[in-house]
Amino acid sequence: MPQLNWFTEAHAASGSSIGFRTERQLHAEKTQFQAIEIYQTTDWGNLMVIDGCIMLTGRDNFLYHEMMSHPALFTHANPKRVVVIGGGDCGTLREVLRHVEVESAVQVEIDERVTRLAEQYFPELCEANDDPRAQLLFDDGIKYMADCTAESIDVVIVDSTDPVGPAEGLFNARFYASCRRALRAGGILVQQSESPIAHLELIKSVHASMREAGFGAVLTLPFPQPCYPTGWWSCTMARKGDDLNTFRATKTFPTRYYNAEIHRAALAQPEFMRAPLGG
Amino acid sequence: MPQLNWFTEAHAASGSSIGFRTERQLHAEKTQFQAIEIYQTTDWGNLMVIDGCIMLTGRDNFLYHEMMSHPALFTHANPKRVVVIGGGDCGTLREVLRHVEVESAVQVEIDERVTRLAEQYFPELCEANDDPRAQLLFDDGIKYMADCTAESIDVVIVDSTDPVGPAEGLFNARFYASCRRALRAGGILVQQSESPIAHLELIKSVHASMREAGFGAVLTLPFPQPCYPTGWWSCTMARKGDDLNTFRATKTFPTRYYNAEIHRAALAQPEFMRAPLGG
Repeated sequence: MPQLNWFTEAHAASGSSIGFRTERQLHAEKTQFQAIEIYQTTDWGNLMVIDGCIMLTGRDNFLYHEMMSHPALFTHANPKRVVVIGGGDCGTLREVLRHVEVESAVQVEIDERVTRLAEQYFPELCEANDDPRAQLLFDDGIKYMADCTAESIDVVIVDSTDPVGPAEGLFNARFYASCRRALRAGGILVQQSESPIAHLELIKSVHASMREAGFGAVLTLPFPQPCYPTGWWSCTMARKGDDLNTFRATKTFPTRYYNAEIHRAALAQPEFMRAPLGG
Repeated sequence: MPQLNWFTEAHAASGSSIGFRTERQLHAEKTQFQAIEIYQTTDWGNLMVIDGCIMLTGRDNFLYHEMMSHPALFTHANPKRVVVIGGGDCGTLREVLRHVEVESAVQVEIDERVTRLAEQYFPELCEANDDPRAQLLFDDGIKYMADCTAESIDVVIVDSTDPVGPAEGLFNARFYASCRRALRAGGILVQQSESPIAHLELIKSVHASMREAGFGAVLTLPFPQPCYPTGWWSCTMARKGDDLNTFRATKTFPTRYYNAEIHRAALAQPEFMRAPLGG
């Protein structure tokens, strides 16, 4: 029996921490962009840590990956072309490819090592990587969206780390304007937008920047996520169009969290979020 | 500037931990029943810890207290007589007393010291304790419910610690049968029922025990709760009647999380809970 330890992320900005009991460290490296560690935990499967921040565990990532993909794709009438910015663990890509309407899904991850380590330590998340509709690029997502053909994409999913370091440029009106330009009419941008209780000011600024970039509707969907600070997370959807409240209840594939009732539930705004977000 | 520390609860059963950055310990004592500590945190207000388990913080307890009270009271057509078992911090009692229909609210906490410390360190939670409709008893909740006049109560709220130690007897069919006997027709029992992701087996057994005690409808409502293990918590409602899905959208008082849309949202069952809980 190896000695058990805990990997704990002390989140300075919120004054709270989350940890998982670990059996051993499986891998550690410094890439060109960041420091990546992989641990084997006692109860949460494998754990990936980037620059000291918990990225995902094998046990609870379904919450995040399902909520980053299915609400946006079921809100769109016919999502054919999807881009994932970041998302190097490939879990969001896998969920996107469950939608039979999708003809092309491009993942643009800046750090190829995240994907190579996911293939090794989270193979279940990478099981759709060989899908002929999937394309894995290792490049700068900001540049990719800026260079994207106008009105060529249906859904852009920004599955990034926190808005510091490499992901900082993914949280501003200039980037959102690139996304909006690349989207066809009715297209949807969705971005991970941190904790409703710890980062409400950030969510407010995301709303303002999305509006500034010209999006007609903006809505934040909260969901549980035990491995992220406060255990409560959110994604924010923006539409090149007016409506984010209606969606197709036509799921034909298995999920573990998402269903049409959960989608409807995530549209409900907690009382304390209403005034700040104009809900 | 005092040295900053962290109070961390390592939750052995789930292999996960949650912590808060603290400025200092304000109080520590061993009562007849348990060890109670109070800390001042940097970002979460005061923190109460019982037997090493985080009970509440000043910043996030509104989630728990609102969800333990308002869904049950708005589901009942006319909740006049309410009993809170446990709940010594008085936060649930305060929310109950916001309902103008309530004529009597009795709180039965086994450890008077919890309430005395709440009065000192969480005075905002105790601001309704002087309401003429409120009665604070310091007694054994199991005995109280067993001795309760049959068909005299409209809502019983079991606001207890985890199902070990003093609260163990609050999670079984015998106790639920006492509650059912004390409830009038249409009456509702609601109990805190731990984490949907970490304690699904416990929630299953709570459902089975409530059914065994004769309740006609049982439903678990998940909600976020950063200070509890996994940051995701739940309450389970049981009715001496058939319906837990309709409720009065007649809130006339301020809340911070609860509103009618959030109530409806909490009724949605995540996909992984449906089969185990028969949803």
